[in-house]
Amino acid sequence: MADNSFLNSRFSMYDLIARKRDGGCLQTEEISFWLRGMLDGSVPDYQTAAMLMAIFWRGLNEAETFALTEEIVASGEQLDLSGIEGVTADKHSTGGVGDKTTLIAMPLAAACGLKIAKMSGRSLGKTGGTADKLAAVPGFKLDLTEAELLAQVADIGLAVVAQNKNLTPADKRLYALRDMTATVDSLPLIAASVMSKKIAAGAGVIVLDVKYGSGAFMPDAASAVELARLMVKLGRSAGRRVTAVISAMASPLGAAVGNALEVAEAAEILQSGQAVRGNEVSADLRRLSVVLAGELLYLGGLAADRATGWQQAEVALANGLGWQRLLQFLQAQGGDVSALQAGQLVQAEFVLPVLAASSGYLAAADAARVAEIVQFLGAGRERLEDEIDYQVGVRFKQPAGAWVEAGDVLAEIYASSLLRAETAARDLQGILSVLPEPPQIEPLIWGLVDEQGQVLPWAEL
Amino acid sequence: MADNSFLNSRFSMYDLIARKRDGGCLQTEEISFWLRGMLDGSVPDYQTAAMLMAIFWRGLNEAETFALTEEIVASGEQLDLSGIEGVTADKHSTGGVGDKTTLIAMPLAAACGLKIAKMSGRSLGKTGGTADKLAAVPGFKLDLTEAELLAQVADIGLAVVAQNKNLTPADKRLYALRDMTATVDSLPLIAASVMSKKIAAGAGVIVLDVKYGSGAFMPDAASAVELARLMVKLGRSAGRRVTAVISAMASPLGAAVGNALEVAEAAEILQSGQAVRGNEVSADLRRLSVVLAGELLYLGGLAADRATGWQQAEVALANGLGWQRLLQFLQAQGGDVSALQAGQLVQAEFVLPVLAASSGYLAAADAARVAEIVQFLGAGRERLEDEIDYQVGVRFKQPAGAWVEAGDVLAEIYASSLLRAETAARDLQGILSVLPEPPQIEPLIWGLVDEQGQVLPWAEL
Repeated sequence: MADNSFLNSRFSMYDLIARKRDGGCLQTEEISFWLRGMLDGSVPDYQTAAMLMAIFWRGLNEAETFALTEEIVASGEQLDLSGIEGVTADKHSTGGVGDKTTLIAMPLAAACGLKIAKMSGRSLGKTGGTADKLAAVPGFKLDLTEAELLAQVADIGLAVVAQNKNLTPADKRLYALRDMTATVDSLPLIAASVMSKKIAAGAGVIVLDVKYGSGAFMPDAASAVELARLMVKLGRSAGRRVTAVISAMASPLGAAVGNALEVAEAAEILQSGQAVRGNEVSADLRRLSVVLAGELLYLGGLAADRATGWQQAEVALANGLGWQRLLQFLQAQGGDVSALQAGQLVQAEFVLPVLAASSGYLAAADAARVAEIVQFLGAGRERLEDEIDYQVGVRFKQPAGAWVEAGDVLAEIYASSLLRAETAARDLQGILSVLPEPPQIEPLIWGLVDEQGQVLPWAEL
Repeated sequence: MADNSFLNSRFSMYDLIARKRDGGCLQTEEISFWLRGMLDGSVPDYQTAAMLMAIFWRGLNEAETFALTEEIVASGEQLDLSGIEGVTADKHSTGGVGDKTTLIAMPLAAACGLKIAKMSGRSLGKTGGTADKLAAVPGFKLDLTEAELLAQVADIGLAVVAQNKNLTPADKRLYALRDMTATVDSLPLIAASVMSKKIAAGAGVIVLDVKYGSGAFMPDAASAVELARLMVKLGRSAGRRVTAVISAMASPLGAAVGNALEVAEAAEILQSGQAVRGNEVSADLRRLSVVLAGELLYLGGLAADRATGWQQAEVALANGLGWQRLLQFLQAQGGDVSALQAGQLVQAEFVLPVLAASSGYLAAADAARVAEIVQFLGAGRERLEDEIDYQVGVRFKQPAGAWVEAGDVLAEIYASSLLRAETAARDLQGILSVLPEPPQIEPLIWGLVDEQGQVLPWAEL
């Protein structure tokens, strides 16, 4: 119906930019014209850049955001999971410091019968993404063929692969331009980018973890809810069942920040069924992972209600089936799990303690500042070609709010050079405050956005 | 002090875009970094496009606009007029329909002793620019060498040349991008573009004619005054004496619209010393040209006050010295003036009258709509490579406000095809209203912005 020659004669990119600049709306066919032109070269990048800044300024309404998302999905291949028996599911976090919930929630949900096929890109960020964390397991490979992926999901209910290069090419081009033109932080552009990838990846059920606070994209709960509602609606308009957990990211999630450290922490929780080693530093991570796994089960129709979903996830944690599923999954993709099983995945050359300078109550560490320290140690990348040091990072030994005595070990620095270790230890000590009164700790889970876009505060669930 | 390697290490284009996006200010060295990067390729066009849209949105303050103007001037060569004895002057109109004041005011001012060196680019617009109008004179050439230009100005006080390709290359690149990204209509970007070219062209005295209304860039007097004040300040900060006349452009200026027709009208006024042929259609054109010439003389110090400047221009009009100077100037640049002298420059194949359908008072014709008709006839260009038909256009036979009888000739269409002539005649008749009561005619000259940026309404002059 809308072939390109027809579109080309009918629309002018100049007029579309001018209209958006003046606060007007773009029609579905006009957004098609733009993105197709961007990909075939008939719309030069400088026009796309001007359009992106105009969108940053004027926004997109829901209809425009739907159209943009659909056009991004249509720009490339889509993964067809329809051959898999059962309910296919995916989980996505908008990103946080120490966020390894995926590594816990996915095996739990798979152990309870969901079919999880997840794509994960190499992450640009101060700390690694899920694909980077998994790469800390020796031998683990992300480059399955589509047939291998489908077979593995059908078999053990869980696979994580590198993002298919032929999926959502329009998103890749748009993101590269946004990243160079200071137009990343636009709610509709973020929502369209995330959801187009999730929709193209084929799962019928998608649970989002939308985070807010110092270590997240979104500054506060209100903006996280706004983003979540938009993403839920985008998913629904594409025929997917989507809900979003809204969670705090003021301080790092769990004890560990750094790739091997985070895999080890996730493994310890699955292996023990408990927050790690008798202290409560990992309690928040354990809790959020169970909530996310339960939400996946409920939304996928495997649990009658949310409480039952959480209960099922707790059972899979307690009986060790989640842990077994993680090992199965890592081995299926070539991973050598012996070090992980032996608690020896982390092999940093230098480990330096950070001690409490005085006695008192430990304040929560600022997530953004911890991320900077971990990036300084080498755990993240600024450019896609940067190498990651999988062994470095920070591990907290005390939870926020705990009473500590002067000289207690608050955290450990894992580093590959003594100089960096010492600098990082000094910096970390600078941001770990010990207070005379117990600090106010922000609740971890703010609430939920349900399938209909309704906002449900946690207290009411 | 500020070499590029130093700048490159110190600034990031991403940060500059983000700051302007958020409403912040750019420092002088940051604007240098941007424009130099744009020209040497280290700042890609898509980043410049995003910056331009951010500037369209957030604006530039005066300091930023000064810095942008200076950097554009510094990006290329500058014309050195210092070898010319006397006061060098330039005149610039922001553009209007039927605006041939330059062709009248320049010879008058030159006849009174000013040294006028004007650069004029091929115009993009519905009707031609000064360079296009002059090209209607057989043999006239715009491509003088710099030595020829300087010699001619020293000799007869007047030369008009094509824009030197090595002047203000940053403006060319910026304008090309603005033109593709819907970011042309930004006050500081317009002011910096115009004034950088005027400053680089070397004249010490610059009189601007800033127009507003249907046929102009600026919609109303207030925005024209704002643009004028900014341009006057930009010129002063570069050590030039600049004032601006603010004039109405609701209906075409004078009787003629179209290149040869406009040259002929200007010639007739200079030749006769009067508004043309006993009717008052050219009275507004004559008046504004005398005001602009007088302003040039006053600002150049050749007249003690404005009234004296106007008087000197009137004398040069009455005694025929202005007309002699126009002929000298055209001949010096290769023009064959025989047809012009004989009143036979206009040679259109088809001339169709447009008649009054009823009796009454003639309303002013809308400038923008007249421009569209004249463009339809072939007098303007949309792309720089388009050919112009110099002979086509419209000539009004009755001034706005005149009493006309049904069947009177209101205007004539000059065309190169009968079909176009008939279409244009029908369209023109559709926009020429005859009213039962005399129409309100907007005053031609709104006022003046003086060298200090003071706004002087015309009634107070």
